[in-house]
Amino acid sequence: MFENKETTNIDELGEFRLIKHLTDAISLETDQTLIGAGDDAALVNPKGKMAIVSTDLLVEQVHFDMMYTPLKHLGYKAAVVNFSDICAMNGQPSQLTLSIAFSSKYTLEAIEELYSGALLACKKYKVDLIGGDTSTIPNGLVISGTAMGFIDESEVVKRSGAKTGDLLCVTGDLGGAYMGLQLLEREKRVFLEQKDMQPDLKSHDYIVGRQLKPEARIDVIDFLKKAGIIPTSMIDISDGLSSEIFHLSESSQVDFTVYEEKLPIDQDTFNMAVEFGIDATTAALNGGEDYELLFTIKQEDYEKIKNDPDITVIGHAKDKGMKNELHSKQGNTYALQAQGWKHKNEQ
Amino acid sequence: MFENKETTNIDELGEFRLIKHLTDAISLETDQTLIGAGDDAALVNPKGKMAIVSTDLLVEQVHFDMMYTPLKHLGYKAAVVNFSDICAMNGQPSQLTLSIAFSSKYTLEAIEELYSGALLACKKYKVDLIGGDTSTIPNGLVISGTAMGFIDESEVVKRSGAKTGDLLCVTGDLGGAYMGLQLLEREKRVFLEQKDMQPDLKSHDYIVGRQLKPEARIDVIDFLKKAGIIPTSMIDISDGLSSEIFHLSESSQVDFTVYEEKLPIDQDTFNMAVEFGIDATTAALNGGEDYELLFTIKQEDYEKIKNDPDITVIGHAKDKGMKNELHSKQGNTYALQAQGWKHKNEQ
Repeated sequence: MFENKETTNIDELGEFRLIKHLTDAISLETDQTLIGAGDDAALVNPKGKMAIVSTDLLVEQVHFDMMYTPLKHLGYKAAVVNFSDICAMNGQPSQLTLSIAFSSKYTLEAIEELYSGALLACKKYKVDLIGGDTSTIPNGLVISGTAMGFIDESEVVKRSGAKTGDLLCVTGDLGGAYMGLQLLEREKRVFLEQKDMQPDLKSHDYIVGRQLKPEARIDVIDFLKKAGIIPTSMIDISDGLSSEIFHLSESSQVDFTVYEEKLPIDQDTFNMAVEFGIDATTAALNGGEDYELLFTIKQEDYEKIKNDPDITVIGHAKDKGMKNELHSKQGNTYALQAQGWKHKNEQ
Repeated sequence: MFENKETTNIDELGEFRLIKHLTDAISLETDQTLIGAGDDAALVNPKGKMAIVSTDLLVEQVHFDMMYTPLKHLGYKAAVVNFSDICAMNGQPSQLTLSIAFSSKYTLEAIEELYSGALLACKKYKVDLIGGDTSTIPNGLVISGTAMGFIDESEVVKRSGAKTGDLLCVTGDLGGAYMGLQLLEREKRVFLEQKDMQPDLKSHDYIVGRQLKPEARIDVIDFLKKAGIIPTSMIDISDGLSSEIFHLSESSQVDFTVYEEKLPIDQDTFNMAVEFGIDATTAALNGGEDYELLFTIKQEDYEKIKNDPDITVIGHAKDKGMKNELHSKQGNTYALQAQGWKHKNEQ
């Protein structure tokens, strides 16, 4: 729903000039990047650290719907989802490549808008956009990002280090991105049926923002470092809490108990779940795309995190074979389902 | 044109199991890769060197046609085009991420075949496949690769170091991939018109192979290193010799004279050009996707390369402002056109 003001057909510009045009806006944020975009490859100085590398795809009609996704937000999100994976290794992202394949319905101004969102995220997170590729595509829009970060090997946190007795922690709150998506989908249906109705999103900035413009929890990585905590295992929540718990469980060879009453759920998320007749706990467990961090710490580190409003202890690790379980508010225990969260057009 | 024997619908498998299924085949080739696929990100030990990073997109109907592209070759090519960019910085590739978005017409077996080609390239080039992402897509197939390599900073070769008097060199031969594409396109048209005609490709293995299964000139990078030569500038030939000459010219602020009689053209390429009524020189100058290296060396290094059959001196650098020129076999001089090469469906 971006406006087409004065538009430029990209065919007129050609790929080389398009890339030059887009990359002219880049200013390097780190002194690690020796060569950015513009040569056959970028050159980065690891400065004695280890390199972390992660990559993510965003596909139109699978991961986003252009009916309600502003291009600038989309570019921002495409960068952030990659940054989040670097955070999930306890690292800080420092470089990004971003490739875009787009059909002829996208004008130069549209692609610029998308890029400007990615560059905004890069600026905010102090990341250098060091390269990418562009191509036409018969239909739709595909964005492929690869993020890098550099870290001391002793600080790397994998999915596999949780031990029995460790505390299971989550950052921020859960289910918001999922409820934001439900709301956007509903308003889209209303709009398609009655074109004169304007979508009612204003009072739901929080959950809509959670869906359209997520953030990576680099602030928590920073806090943990300052607090002298190295989590024993960590993952980011892209597919839903429940699914990520199973990943930690499988990699670490422990099981987890999670307490329903501890799950951090924002009031706006809760209210919208009530409005949709969805159990808020289900939204928190199975809704995806919150890009919060899920990690385990040793019990002795509890004192250091207990006053941080951004970190909630939601459960603990126990011996493998005891099953991943949810302890309900009513005092019952249920087996967790590794249901994950499928993107709306993925069956 | 891959055969559908027993096929598995990917929906049945789910994304996590698909990735696990595909990555189970990976064995790490380098001791640099500390964590490969399977966590939030990969971890790589730069061992005191600089990181080179490059990324490329391959899009169905733009960069390849499934009518005549075997999936295994396509996977191989998707890896190699990224390796070639690392070579173009004078580096050796050591890690690769590969993301694939594919429509429901692709079965599990098809995606496995594609991956097996990428893994074959990784094995041949001693590169670790360290990660990737998969997604469905409404139509077509998009492959996004990002390659890394590690190098001493003093050995990095940019596009920008050529000086007046330097010799312009090219590896291998030129125009083959372009003539291979012309042949494949012709046989496709014949096949579509007369389904009982079988394509006549056997006697043209060389040019068809140049198009469908290119190689990165890691062998030349190795030779240059052993010979003690650091090129003054370098680029790989993905868009056509002429276009790449203009890139070196612009980055290095020199112009070049190229001698038509020196252009290395294989006999099969030449014959096919005659058959198609195309000037072989034009195919060599403007045909793309040969993935050979174009580089400049100081005159004093000439003795070290003159006996290498894989390297041809095709011209020299001169002061900026003298124009990039082709000196024809007949002794005439023409201004080079930075025509490049557009993929067949890019206008």
